[in-house]
Formats: sequence, structure tokens, C-alpha cells
Amino acid sequence: MARRMPLLFSAFNMLAPSHHDHGQWVRDESGQRDYTRPEYWVDVARTLERARFDLLFFADVLAPYELHGGSRDAALRTGLQAPVLDAASILALLAFHTEHLGFAFTENVLQEPPYSFARRASTLDHLTGGRLGWNVVTGSIPGTGRNLGYGGLPEHADRYARAEEYLRVVYALWERSWEDDAVVRDRATGRYADPAKIHSINHSGEFYDVPGAHPSEPSPQRTPVLFTAGASDRFAQFAADHAEGVFSSIEVGDPAANVARLRAAAAAAGRDPASLKIISKFAFVLGSTEEEARRLDDELAETRSVESLLIKLSEGAKADLSVLGHQERISDILNKTGDELGGFRAQLERAPDHAWTLERYVRWHGRRHAVGTPEQIADAVEHWADVGVDGLNVHYLISPGSWEDFADHLTPELTRRGLMRAEYDPPGTTLRERLFGAGARLPASHPARRGALQPA
Amino acid sequence: MARRMPLLFSAFNMLAPSHHDHGQWVRDESGQRDYTRPEYWVDVARTLERARFDLLFFADVLAPYELHGGSRDAALRTGLQAPVLDAASILALLAFHTEHLGFAFTENVLQEPPYSFARRASTLDHLTGGRLGWNVVTGSIPGTGRNLGYGGLPEHADRYARAEEYLRVVYALWERSWEDDAVVRDRATGRYADPAKIHSINHSGEFYDVPGAHPSEPSPQRTPVLFTAGASDRFAQFAADHAEGVFSSIEVGDPAANVARLRAAAAAAGRDPASLKIISKFAFVLGSTEEEARRLDDELAETRSVESLLIKLSEGAKADLSVLGHQERISDILNKTGDELGGFRAQLERAPDHAWTLERYVRWHGRRHAVGTPEQIADAVEHWADVGVDGLNVHYLISPGSWEDFADHLTPELTRRGLMRAEYDPPGTTLRERLFGAGARLPASHPARRGALQPA
Repeated sequence: MARRMPLLFSAFNMLAPSHHDHGQWVRDESGQRDYTRPEYWVDVARTLERARFDLLFFADVLAPYELHGGSRDAALRTGLQAPVLDAASILALLAFHTEHLGFAFTENVLQEPPYSFARRASTLDHLTGGRLGWNVVTGSIPGTGRNLGYGGLPEHADRYARAEEYLRVVYALWERSWEDDAVVRDRATGRYADPAKIHSINHSGEFYDVPGAHPSEPSPQRTPVLFTAGASDRFAQFAADHAEGVFSSIEVGDPAANVARLRAAAAAAGRDPASLKIISKFAFVLGSTEEEARRLDDELAETRSVESLLIKLSEGAKADLSVLGHQERISDILNKTGDELGGFRAQLERAPDHAWTLERYVRWHGRRHAVGTPEQIADAVEHWADVGVDGLNVHYLISPGSWEDFADHLTPELTRRGLMRAEYDPPGTTLRERLFGAGARLPASHPARRGALQPA
Repeated sequence: MARRMPLLFSAFNMLAPSHHDHGQWVRDESGQRDYTRPEYWVDVARTLERARFDLLFFADVLAPYELHGGSRDAALRTGLQAPVLDAASILALLAFHTEHLGFAFTENVLQEPPYSFARRASTLDHLTGGRLGWNVVTGSIPGTGRNLGYGGLPEHADRYARAEEYLRVVYALWERSWEDDAVVRDRATGRYADPAKIHSINHSGEFYDVPGAHPSEPSPQRTPVLFTAGASDRFAQFAADHAEGVFSSIEVGDPAANVARLRAAAAAAGRDPASLKIISKFAFVLGSTEEEARRLDDELAETRSVESLLIKLSEGAKADLSVLGHQERISDILNKTGDELGGFRAQLERAPDHAWTLERYVRWHGRRHAVGTPEQIADAVEHWADVGVDGLNVHYLISPGSWEDFADHLTPELTRRGLMRAEYDPPGTTLRERLFGAGARLPASHPARRGALQPA
């Protein structure tokens, strides 16, 4: 068998008590209860660097989930992604205490004007030495839009139209406002920059007017590495047009076909299909024997919150599943005639056993991660490499324990198999150089670099 | 003479090549050329803590000055506060590498919606362990408003109306959304927060609609220590109503009367006049002898940029002074009949000698700082204590050299005289506790805590 291309490893987290662990903050060994403390995050970042991860990837929601039970109460009660802090604010600290790890943060295009956002991202790219990624999202929780002054979440198509224009603006600020030699720093004449090489972007659009120039000098990557995440067809087009890394639910349906579809969309958008890193999600429970791993997994199941899992199932189904009793059998639930199940009906129909109660199903759903010895987990990683994804977004079950287990036991095994890079690039390598092996700047085939988007 | 109350010491800076040093980035010993590098700022912060400063205070402009010469070119050419990065992004790093120093950042109320700003500030207050201050500004450069989508800078009165409402919103989010015991973190039941103790603020106003609750749990200070800076009458009222610290041009006219006026305004607004810390600006050149200090000051004058000084004089005068020749005599300039001088006419009339050229006047203007031995500089500090200010906002002339000089030579002398605190409070003390000697929360007399601003 040919030696594999190493996968990209991303660690998924959030500045909140509970991300995808669904309530494991209650456990003795959970550090995530300290999510407000910088020391905790420095430890997480260092552990990830010890595990030779490429990326610490921060998700975000600006308002709590509110579909399940019709209010934010369930999210706040279980600590599921609420309360939440601003991840951008911690990146400079984490970069200072690591040499190689990249940092991606999520920021909604509704959150602040593109002009001030572009400066913030340039700042972070400077302060991280070019190790910055941005996960471009358009929002999915109505509270985000309501509290940011949009009177609710803008319609799906409108959000994508905004996102397209937002990107046009920030691309112009990052890529075309300052020429490469605009900063002269001439100490003899006292001339810091050459104003003739700094250009106004003259953007006047449907949603945004930004006539001026970028307020910051170019950072190592100029445009941070662009990520996006989503599921809709419109999302797939958006990802194909713009993203360098895409987090998608590759596992739903035919994974290899899902990967092929995303790559084909990138090619159709005029981009090199290999310039889109496709990243699937992954979680694991590890033991020195399979038996030990299963015992640990049983322990974790005890403290996993059914309510927290149901919040996310409600979101996925676009239905309030709090109307269902935890002890109702799946067969009885499927006999309901209303449409209160939303997308959950199709999901339940695929359940292993329709005699299960809802709670049993939900608990089973919460355990769909790899369980076993390092070799068995590495086999599961290898399966994803076979499917053709470029990387894995690893969800912790316990933090920092999952990352420590990874560093101690999985990194050696994955490295041995060629599934993980054997060493980091030299310090000073930007995130984009690391991921694509080429330059720090976006490739010429990316729309941000194309003439069609030149400012007037 | 009675022993004095120690003054508050704030170090004024900006993530830009040049703040109030006016071009000293050209000098060998200037570290400010490295303003994009985190290592530089960690060194500055540590030096300030060694000098026992209370605060590192970051100014900001979101767009370059554009009055002088009618464009941004002069600011970019001289590096005067342009290019510029986002200071909020570096605070968590600097707090991690210090134990006591407070950090104030400037954010314009036009820059992002109050809902997302409130979360960012709560994040920073958590990550700094309650050492955060916010300098509330309304913007003064037209490019800020133009590029943030306001079509230009909103009118002065409109900006203050926005600021008032912005504060009402963030006060409600910080102070009244989460009750003190809303976070329960009950590991036995898996209950992180008690939703019944988390309240929607139901704000619907002229400029902002924020119906929901604060997305973050309360930080040590809840509301960061509130600073503001300005000069107009409307500003004075705004400061009296809201500010805990005010940076004002106390030196213009009768300093003691200026201080008294600000305190009287606070009292008239129903607040304890002592709850408003009045902070004047201060800069110095220090030598082991007066002669050495004067020689160093002469050297600095050589590398100070006249064009950079004129940019700020134009801003102050609200007039484009680039129409004046550097070699024109003041007497000839004052003979001009047009109103192209704006407020500069009155300033020039007070010049020591009307036979001076403009350049000579500008260079003289750029040297209005204390020059001398540590004892002489301490005398100048003592003068301000006599005037009745609570603190000094110290401008560097060379960074980090000015801070190193302060730590090595001024801190001991000021401490000896009781003008500076002899030691810091214990680690873990919040900025508000340090400044006011009371609790971490805003006092009950502050409008943020008053019933009149309660959400509906």
C-alpha cells in the first residue's frame, strides 16, 4: 500500500462549559469547568502542540439554542455552548505559548462591520505570526440576529448574499488595499509607508459601504485561512467558492460521494479541487485494552446529559423534541401523525431498534465515537483517510484528557502509519504554508485574488 | 505638609508605529517599530509593572487622520497612529504576563453592536481576572463613520445620543441580566446555570434593539472600569454621568478650575465627586543631571516629525494647516484674514514669540514635557498633585525607554514622596478595587446600578 498523505488534525472546542461533550463538565477530571481561565486554555494549546495538531478550532454561537423547549433555558441549564465567551480574545495568548499550532476562530458576518472585523483579523494574524484561520459563518440561531439588531435571523438566502458581499469587502481590504512594498519604514526620511501604494477599496454595495483603505499593514497571510461549516446546497456552493477548509457532515449518507461532490463543486467554481481541505468530525475513547476503553466509555455515558443531546437533536431536526417523553418507544413516536418531529422522523426510522425508548436512542446517538485501543482508534482514523477526507476535526469527550490521550497514545501510532506528520515545519511557518505546502498568501485561483473582485 | 494620596499612573500607547512620540520610531532605541510583535508588548507591560503603574491604556483610531493636507497621506507617511491594529486582541496576553497591571482599551460605540461588544468585554474581564477598563469614545475622524457604514461621522449630538443608548444596553447586559447566584455549577444534577435567574433585558430603543440576555456569565467586575476622553461641554456631561476615569486636557486655561468643574458636574449628576478619577497627561525626559536631560531632549527634538506634529495641530484646530509654509513667521500667519487657521489662531496668539517661524513654534510645541533629574520630574508630578488631579496619563517619548527610565529612576523618587503607591495590592485585586479601594462592582451611585435604567 502506498504511503499515505498525512491528515490534518483539528481540535474542536469552544469558550463554554460544554461543547460537544454534552455535560461532561460535571466530572472530576474535566478542566472545561475552567473555561473562563486563561491558564486552562494555555494548557490545552500546549497539549495539542505536544500531540502535533495542526489547529485549535473554536466554534461559536452568539446566542443560546432556543428551539428545544422553546427557550434558552435548556442550554443554560446544561451549559451546552452557553454561557459563552469570545474566542478571538484569547488567540494571541495561545499563540504566544505555542510555536506551531494554528488557531481558527468563528465569526458571524452579522457580528460586526467588515471594516472593523478586517482590522481585528489582521491584528490576530500579526500577533499569531500568520497562524490564523477564520471560520466564516452566517448564523443559524434566531437570537443572534435578534440581539444584533436585525429583528431576527435574516433569511437563509439573504444571509448568504450578505456573506458574499462581506467577503468581497474583507478580501479587498486584505488583498488589494496595501501593495507589498507600501510599508517602507525608512528611518532616514521618517517615512513609514508610501501613501501612493495604499489604495481605497471604494466598495459600495447592497449591504455595506466601505470607501476607504485597510487601516492595518499587511499581516503574514493577509487573508486568514478561510474555513466554513454547514450542510445546505447553498453552503456547498459557498464553500466551493471561498473555503480553503470545510467542516461538513461527511458521514451522513455516502461519505466518499459527499467528498467527491464537494471537490467537484470547487472545480466547477474554477478552483483546484485539492485547494479545498475537507474535514470530517471524529471523537474517541481510548484504553490500553479494548475492555478498558469500553469501561471508560460506559463511565462517560453515565455523565452525558440526555437533555443536552436533545437540544442538538432538536436543532438538527428543526423541531422542538421536548414534546416527546424520554420513555416513549420509537415505534410509538413514529406513529404520531403530526409533523412535530421535523427531520427527526427520518433519523429515528434509521434507529437500530424501534423498540428502544427515546432516551435509549439518544444515549446510543451520544456514543457514536470510536472506542478501543490506540491501534483500533488509528484504524478508525485510517477509515476516514480511505474515504478521502483531508483531515479530522476532533471533538473532545473530556478536556484536556482527550488531548492528553491523543498525545500520549494516538500521535505515535498515527505517525507510525503515516497518517500524521512526523514533525512540524520550522517555527515561523504560517498556517496556510503548513496546510498547503505553498506560500503564505491565498493561491491565485482563489476569488479573493481574481480580477473580477478588484475594487472599482 | 500632609502626606499625599498616591496618584494613579497610566501609560498611554497604541498599536501603531507612533502614538504621541511623533515619529520617534526612526531611532535606534525605539522598540515601537515592533508594534506588530507580541514580544514587544509583553516587555512593555512587564516594564510598566516593574514601574508599579496602575494601567496600560490603549488609545485607538479606526481610520487615519485626514484633515491635514486633506487626505490620510500625511498620517500614513509619518506612521502617526496609522497603520493601526486592534488593541483588544492583545489584552489577554499582556494580562497573563503580569499580575497587577490594569488594561484599558478604547472602543468606539460605532464599531460593533452593543450585544457582541458586551460579550467581548466580559471575555476580557474574565481573562484579565478583572483588570479591564474600557475607554468609551464616540469617534472624531470622519473615515471611521464612513467605513463603518454610517456614510460619514454622525453629528456630534447624535453620536452622544448613540453612546448614551449604547451604554444603557451594555449596562443592562453586564449588571442586570445575570443574578449573582445564576451560575450554580451543580455537578450532582448537571445544572450549570439557573435559567430563572437569567433575565432578558428587553431593550428596544432609537438606535438599538437587544431583547435577549447577556450571553456570558458575570465577570469579576461585570462592567469594566469606565473611562472617557474628550473636551466639549457635551463630553463633560457624558463624563460626569458615566465615567470612573476621565482623560481631559486639564492643562488648558486654569487647571485647578478645570478639575473643579469636572467634579462639580459629577456631583450635579448625583454621583460622589471622588468616584471620578481625573487624569491629566504627562511626559518627561530624564537624565542623571539636568544637563544630561537637556542634551537627551535636544537629541529627541532632532528626530521629532514636524509633519506629524502638524497633523495633530490641524486636528486640534479643526483646520488644514498644510496650507501654511513651515518658514512663515507667526506674525505673518496671524495677519492672514481668512478663517483657514480655525482654532490655531488663538493658539498661535499665545506663542512665546511672534517672530518665530511656524516650524520653530511647532518644534517648541512638541517639547512641552518635563525635562530634568528624577527630582525635577518628581517636582513636576507634584505640581499636578497640587492642582488636584487623581492621576497622570504618561506619554512615552521613546518606548520602552521612557518606561524603563520611569521604573529605574522615577518610581523610587515618587514612592519616597508618597506620590506613588509603595506596593501593589495583593494579586487578584481587580482594577476597580485598586483604583477606588472599594468593591469590584460599580458603586450603587453609578447610573448603571440605578433603578431608572432597569430593563422593562
